[in-house]
Amino acid sequence: MITGHVFIATSLDGFIARADGGIDWLLARDDPAEDHGHAAFLADKDGVVMGRGSYEAALGMDPWPYDRPVVVLSATLAPARVPVRLGERVRVIDAPPRAAMAGLAAAGWRRVWVDGGRVVQSFLREGLIADLVVTRVPVLLGTGRPLFGPLDRDLALTHVATRSFPSGLVQSRYRVDP
Amino acid sequence: MITGHVFIATSLDGFIARADGGIDWLLARDDPAEDHGHAAFLADKDGVVMGRGSYEAALGMDPWPYDRPVVVLSATLAPARVPVRLGERVRVIDAPPRAAMAGLAAAGWRRVWVDGGRVVQSFLREGLIADLVVTRVPVLLGTGRPLFGPLDRDLALTHVATRSFPSGLVQSRYRVDP
Repeated sequence: MITGHVFIATSLDGFIARADGGIDWLLARDDPAEDHGHAAFLADKDGVVMGRGSYEAALGMDPWPYDRPVVVLSATLAPARVPVRLGERVRVIDAPPRAAMAGLAAAGWRRVWVDGGRVVQSFLREGLIADLVVTRVPVLLGTGRPLFGPLDRDLALTHVATRSFPSGLVQSRYRVDP
Repeated sequence: MITGHVFIATSLDGFIARADGGIDWLLARDDPAEDHGHAAFLADKDGVVMGRGSYEAALGMDPWPYDRPVVVLSATLAPARVPVRLGERVRVIDAPPRAAMAGLAAAGWRRVWVDGGRVVQSFLREGLIADLVVTRVPVLLGTGRPLFGPLDRDLALTHVATRSFPSGLVQSRYRVDP
């Protein structure tokens, strides 16, 4: 049994990045002195599954921001494009969500951080997400890359807890109902 | 000085209604025993400004759901279409947001409940909204009528307070920064 888990920040109007991928609006409001629980969230995760967009954004960061194995779901990214310095830490898989998760389960993974808008959307549609931690940043962007997208049917959630921070961030945890 | 104030519920993915206007997903999760603060919000409002969509939805309700004067902003709705039974309580104005608010200010209004997706969006773009109370309903719809829309620039907000309810609703209050 393998489950997907989301931990992500959005603007109040639901964007995880500007249309060009920019997250300046988030960084400007992210008080590093506040513990938003990311380390605690990661503690029991076996690795991260993300799309090409999140991967390429991370490539621009030094040091590499993930201390867990990263799986990039992409049909277009050549595995050879993963820099040697990341060799062991990044794997590119060209597979749909359910097959990718089955492969990771066979490799012993149990709890996966699912990151990035399009990957979160496809995993939600496939019923592969067990819970979501969504942190709302107090700004309206008007446009950008949305966290959520089309679904085949309503997805009912159960609210678990909400807390707010002096910075103005509001973080809610939801379970996806079976 | 006249100010606009928003009090509205959305799905977790930001919709105030389905594409066909349906709010069954909201009604199914709205515990009438919970006080979500709507009466307290209304107590210091002089009236409601809404668009044609919200007005026509309200027309289907019996009794008429508003105990405050209602102004419908519409270029296409003929004032003659307001039922006689609502005579004094509903006025149709064909004016852009800023002119409409100036007219209401001249009539003595000070604090206005601004309701409905497109009207909220246009009032936000025009800087006519002072604060928003957004109540998140724990469901993803995938599609529908969005609360927020395009903006000319970022709108920074200040988080005032958040509370959650046993029903799973999470309500946050934001001030729009000047």
